[in-house]
Amino acid sequence: MKVMYAVSSGRYNRPEFILPLLIIVQLGLNTVEGVWPLPQDFTSSTERYPLNPRAFHFGYGEQSVAQQGCSVLDAAFKRYFSLIFPDYTSANGVLQFSKDKPFIVEISVDHDDCESYPKEDSSEKYNLSVSERKAILNAETVWGAVRGLETFSQLVYQDDFGSYFVNKTEIEDFPRFQFRGILLDTSRHYLPVQTILKTLDAMAYSKFNVFHWHIVDDPSFPYQSRSFPSLSSKGAFHPMTHIYTQSDVRRVISYARLLGIRVLPEFDSPGHTNSWGKGQSDLLTPCYRGGTPSGTFGPVNPALPSTYQFMARLFKEVSSVFPDSYIHLGGDEVDFSCWKSNPDIRRFMHKMGFGVDFTKLQAFYIEKIVNITSALNKTSIVWQDVFDYHERRSSLSVVEVWRGGCYLCEVRRVAKAGIRVILASPWYLDQPGPTHNWARYYTVWPLAFQGTEEQKKLVIGGEVCMWGEYVDATNLSPRLWPRASAAAERLWSDEKQTSSVDKASPRLQDFRCKLVRRGIQAEPLYVGHCKHEYQGV
Amino acid sequence: MKVMYAVSSGRYNRPEFILPLLIIVQLGLNTVEGVWPLPQDFTSSTERYPLNPRAFHFGYGEQSVAQQGCSVLDAAFKRYFSLIFPDYTSANGVLQFSKDKPFIVEISVDHDDCESYPKEDSSEKYNLSVSERKAILNAETVWGAVRGLETFSQLVYQDDFGSYFVNKTEIEDFPRFQFRGILLDTSRHYLPVQTILKTLDAMAYSKFNVFHWHIVDDPSFPYQSRSFPSLSSKGAFHPMTHIYTQSDVRRVISYARLLGIRVLPEFDSPGHTNSWGKGQSDLLTPCYRGGTPSGTFGPVNPALPSTYQFMARLFKEVSSVFPDSYIHLGGDEVDFSCWKSNPDIRRFMHKMGFGVDFTKLQAFYIEKIVNITSALNKTSIVWQDVFDYHERRSSLSVVEVWRGGCYLCEVRRVAKAGIRVILASPWYLDQPGPTHNWARYYTVWPLAFQGTEEQKKLVIGGEVCMWGEYVDATNLSPRLWPRASAAAERLWSDEKQTSSVDKASPRLQDFRCKLVRRGIQAEPLYVGHCKHEYQGV
Repeated sequence: MKVMYAVSSGRYNRPEFILPLLIIVQLGLNTVEGVWPLPQDFTSSTERYPLNPRAFHFGYGEQSVAQQGCSVLDAAFKRYFSLIFPDYTSANGVLQFSKDKPFIVEISVDHDDCESYPKEDSSEKYNLSVSERKAILNAETVWGAVRGLETFSQLVYQDDFGSYFVNKTEIEDFPRFQFRGILLDTSRHYLPVQTILKTLDAMAYSKFNVFHWHIVDDPSFPYQSRSFPSLSSKGAFHPMTHIYTQSDVRRVISYARLLGIRVLPEFDSPGHTNSWGKGQSDLLTPCYRGGTPSGTFGPVNPALPSTYQFMARLFKEVSSVFPDSYIHLGGDEVDFSCWKSNPDIRRFMHKMGFGVDFTKLQAFYIEKIVNITSALNKTSIVWQDVFDYHERRSSLSVVEVWRGGCYLCEVRRVAKAGIRVILASPWYLDQPGPTHNWARYYTVWPLAFQGTEEQKKLVIGGEVCMWGEYVDATNLSPRLWPRASAAAERLWSDEKQTSSVDKASPRLQDFRCKLVRRGIQAEPLYVGHCKHEYQGV
Repeated sequence: MKVMYAVSSGRYNRPEFILPLLIIVQLGLNTVEGVWPLPQDFTSSTERYPLNPRAFHFGYGEQSVAQQGCSVLDAAFKRYFSLIFPDYTSANGVLQFSKDKPFIVEISVDHDDCESYPKEDSSEKYNLSVSERKAILNAETVWGAVRGLETFSQLVYQDDFGSYFVNKTEIEDFPRFQFRGILLDTSRHYLPVQTILKTLDAMAYSKFNVFHWHIVDDPSFPYQSRSFPSLSSKGAFHPMTHIYTQSDVRRVISYARLLGIRVLPEFDSPGHTNSWGKGQSDLLTPCYRGGTPSGTFGPVNPALPSTYQFMARLFKEVSSVFPDSYIHLGGDEVDFSCWKSNPDIRRFMHKMGFGVDFTKLQAFYIEKIVNITSALNKTSIVWQDVFDYHERRSSLSVVEVWRGGCYLCEVRRVAKAGIRVILASPWYLDQPGPTHNWARYYTVWPLAFQGTEEQKKLVIGGEVCMWGEYVDATNLSPRLWPRASAAAERLWSDEKQTSSVDKASPRLQDFRCKLVRRGIQAEPLYVGHCKHEYQGV
């Protein structure tokens, strides 16, 4: 049954024709809601079609390379059915009970990447065309199709009587940046696997595609290594309850895969390794005081061959556990004072001809680790510190810019050196400060530096960092959402179409209510309400 | 079966005797944990007794005035059994299955206030003595007994094998201040009833005893009035889903009663009443621009007799719905510009001889409202603005100090005028800022002003304010807890024993983990972990 009403489509397009104002007011100006992040090309009409959950299904197009049995899309159909019809509880197998003609969302993809992992260069482009009784979603890859399903789910809305509608719509969409990440820190506080999975869900709603898992650091080592089980049994907060087993990690990776999200592990060294030393003796540098060991330890000991044997074995394991082609090697904030205090390190420096320049020692160490991971066919990411200190920068692949101040100056320097850049500085969402100031994360211009087109292409994306000093499962969600969504639009959408905070504000408010409806504890931007408030607590 | 081990009791008392260090280390230094807020007089021993949930019960002492059937205590026994034994799921009626001799917590109270409401002068004093197979809890009132049960529940701990223990302990305890409140704002965002009830639970864990319900304000009027149903049907965010029905309010009040928490409603006027005007015409002042009404409205219109007829009826209803003897009348932040613009108001000013001093008009209005509520036998609280502007201050009963700057100067002024004071200024927890800086809420000295003992006694307590601009059910808990607990200790405990942030820090960390274990989303203070992390998300 088709019902046609004219409503103002609001923010993007002028209504094609205007029915009496009364009807517009009655139906509400907000019935056609926005999509977040904003698609590159979006045309919606005032023509709307009713959707009946009992006469709605997803299907594969005839020309689609992927067909039934495609794990990514089969799972996405199930997931999005519930997201599109949140009121509808007994979903499966009852299509026959409706006499309505069905509405079909027909998906076609060009590549059969159903059983693979999303990759750094995977296309996420899709076209979506919604018309009477049919939506056609075409994409090059299943990952593009998943993004398109997210968009479709955001196009569906309910009127005041609970009926579902979708408007006639044409969308051509693709991401501005290929790398759109969120960092979670599971060392400063342990995050239960469920919390990680829920965050992955919310990431997919904002079209993030990289989960940067800062899995270990000074305070704890929760990764349970097959090769070195002592690292977690001695270095985790608790050897049983506060670890990620191999199957936990597999579960996170395969859950993320279905959402089109890459899992990028970080094993940060030589600094930030305090917890490593508990389960691996002779790995860290013994610090000295007054000519004798003080009993404390500093960064990884770069002077011992055993260090590199250990690292080679550890990274071999990590490379096989995490399928992504990227690996994050850290390399930030190395404190030289312990190295300086240690006579063996000083002797090694002398032997290597480093003089008293400890940045050379650090560069030496990182280069060894980069070579280990290169030999494992991994592309390594390092924090900007490594770029700043390194002399032979050509050995670096990707640099992540995180320090404050003129971060675009640093982006420019890295790009000028011909190295790929990920920008994190403006998106440190763990920080206290005026938490509601989401516009601060929206008004970021990652390419606003002087450089050639070639250089700008080296900026592959950006990342929201949620460090764990003050964050665990109790407050992660409201701290991340919807502020991270502001960054997500900057990374996905066209900058020119999304440069106004005022225009974005009501759209972000709508989107935040969608997140809440989907069970995400996304905090409010300001005074107001959602039709469905968070009921979890 | 009794087991005796020596463990370091840690923070309060020296162990009476020391067994070999090995045992102490094995058992862990943290097995005897603290009580938050710190009791006034606390002596614990290293002697500990095992508790078996199948051989544990609460009972009424023979000399107790309250006996079985006492609603407050019967409910508290049930509640605290689950809180004391969180692992124990099938609780009821299986005591006979254990061969252990039972451990009895024997409660005696002097007054039979089982079916009454906690009052402003209700004693919360209690004595608790824990010895072998028995704990004796004596209190003047059931409210004191409820506080004592909370303390007892915090004394019980589990060893690494999951066994429950309690140490030999003697406690004499009473609150430093009689008024220890938390304000929730349900107008700027609607809070579901469940969220309010959960907050009441958490309040009881920190021994708060007043829920200040800032129920209506400019943005919405969710209170469903019997006398004036239009106020919520037109003034709430939504007339069905975003309101508090009479039975919702009753539910909150009776739930709070069982926890020994008073429910203090605030109907703030003459400012902060925007939403009132939607359902009650002629209540608000029409603002003028260029000699004609602009279509906007200002504060309540103090010039019309109908205003006071309306208020008398509304407050009569409110006084009967909310049993507490206090009522909060607001009176803050009145913007005079609309009153100034209105010729009828100016005419009234002239008639009354107020000249152009609009503070006189405000004082006139508030005095009328105070008289209305006095006639209903209610003690009124007003925000400090009223005290500041008022000439005849003697008509005021309780003033709440909320402005920043030298808030103790204001406390002193109010106390000097012989009026009771509630201090809120240092505890505006809704504010962004450095959210983790809990010490800021701990290092508050409410009585550090020059004044007589008599004047200091007029400071009846303090209040944590959680305004709703940026807060709703998605982020209320982590924003409130455990920071509000820092304020709670300032309001309950002896200042001299609790002046060190360093000493409080590990105790607050322990307490925060207890809150998490009890399902409260209390955010972390810093890097670390709880034995049982929050699993809700």
